[in-house]
Amino acid sequence: MKEQGSLIVVSGFSGAGKGTLMKNLLRRGDRYALSVSMTTRSPRPGEADGKDYYFVSTEKFEETIKAGGLLEYAKYCDHYYGTPKQAVLSRMAEGKDVLLEIDVQGGRQIKKIFPETVLVFIVTPDAKTLLERLRGRGSESEDVIHSRIARAADESRIIPDYDYVLVNEEGDLDACTDRLEDIIRASHFRTGSNRELIESLDRGLHELI
Amino acid sequence: MKEQGSLIVVSGFSGAGKGTLMKNLLRRGDRYALSVSMTTRSPRPGEADGKDYYFVSTEKFEETIKAGGLLEYAKYCDHYYGTPKQAVLSRMAEGKDVLLEIDVQGGRQIKKIFPETVLVFIVTPDAKTLLERLRGRGSESEDVIHSRIARAADESRIIPDYDYVLVNEEGDLDACTDRLEDIIRASHFRTGSNRELIESLDRGLHELI
Repeated sequence: MKEQGSLIVVSGFSGAGKGTLMKNLLRRGDRYALSVSMTTRSPRPGEADGKDYYFVSTEKFEETIKAGGLLEYAKYCDHYYGTPKQAVLSRMAEGKDVLLEIDVQGGRQIKKIFPETVLVFIVTPDAKTLLERLRGRGSESEDVIHSRIARAADESRIIPDYDYVLVNEEGDLDACTDRLEDIIRASHFRTGSNRELIESLDRGLHELI
Repeated sequence: MKEQGSLIVVSGFSGAGKGTLMKNLLRRGDRYALSVSMTTRSPRPGEADGKDYYFVSTEKFEETIKAGGLLEYAKYCDHYYGTPKQAVLSRMAEGKDVLLEIDVQGGRQIKKIFPETVLVFIVTPDAKTLLERLRGRGSESEDVIHSRIARAADESRIIPDYDYVLVNEEGDLDACTDRLEDIIRASHFRTGSNRELIESLDRGLHELI
């Protein structure tokens, strides 16, 4: 009934497995598209322009901000990162559900200008599990792990502003992906995403009476 | 992740096939339960108390209203009809998704006192199809059909207050039922339905820092 795709923001604790979840979802079909961010940082070895990021100059990025060409943006470590509006809108118009992996600040920015965005937050079953997963990576110092936990504690205050919360249980990635798909499919039938249908029914019925 | 079921209000145009849709859904498993309404009208032949309706006296009904025991109620043709709160809440606590087939006024009443209710509105693909289906029944006068169309025209103004709109296409009942199931499943992961999980994560994370 609806041709247009949805915009889905996926945020979550560092260590909750967002990246793996998104990869698993994208593997399920070309109905899903990942939004490519724009950044002013330099490409790392193996990164391709237009695939991993749109790599642009600071001037170009700031022009895009001024022209209203970004759905959200932020500056980390002296580099800009943002979501190009036009690319997202044209994928949605093609009928793709566009997925965006960004942080809670970005999620809230987008929801403000685009209220039909679906905000999904990915968590571990509990705090202890998050700590164990971060330690299990074995690649980070206790200081870095502590700062990630502190950040998760801040983010947990913002989860209620999100539409959905999904627990990504260890070894149950497919179940979590199924749930994300349920949420995305359901979003196509929201009244706010079907205004034309509702108006056309209203018009048609009033013509009959 | 969530034990408690959701409350789903299904409304829609007379002739859009709500009843058939609900029956088809209920056949899919005992995860779904239909709410039984309370009424002051007399049982018709074959109707069973506690199954089709809870048949009560006007006094008993008015006492229940006063005691805050109804989620919504209305009076049609001198008889009361209402949704008993306790029965709905206890089925939800058992983990059932409780379905309620009521009109738009009832749907809005419930949403006010119970914001986590999911409101779904069932429509035909267009106004002409609704008229054809009503005529196709062959059991109603043109006057009655006209009053149903007039009522649908009024209701169509209220659809935007609903959360979801579903098109029930002729011969595609299973697709419509699948979509209703997507909506119900997704509702289990709304942040508003998972407050305990979110609070417990927040508490646990703050204890770690």
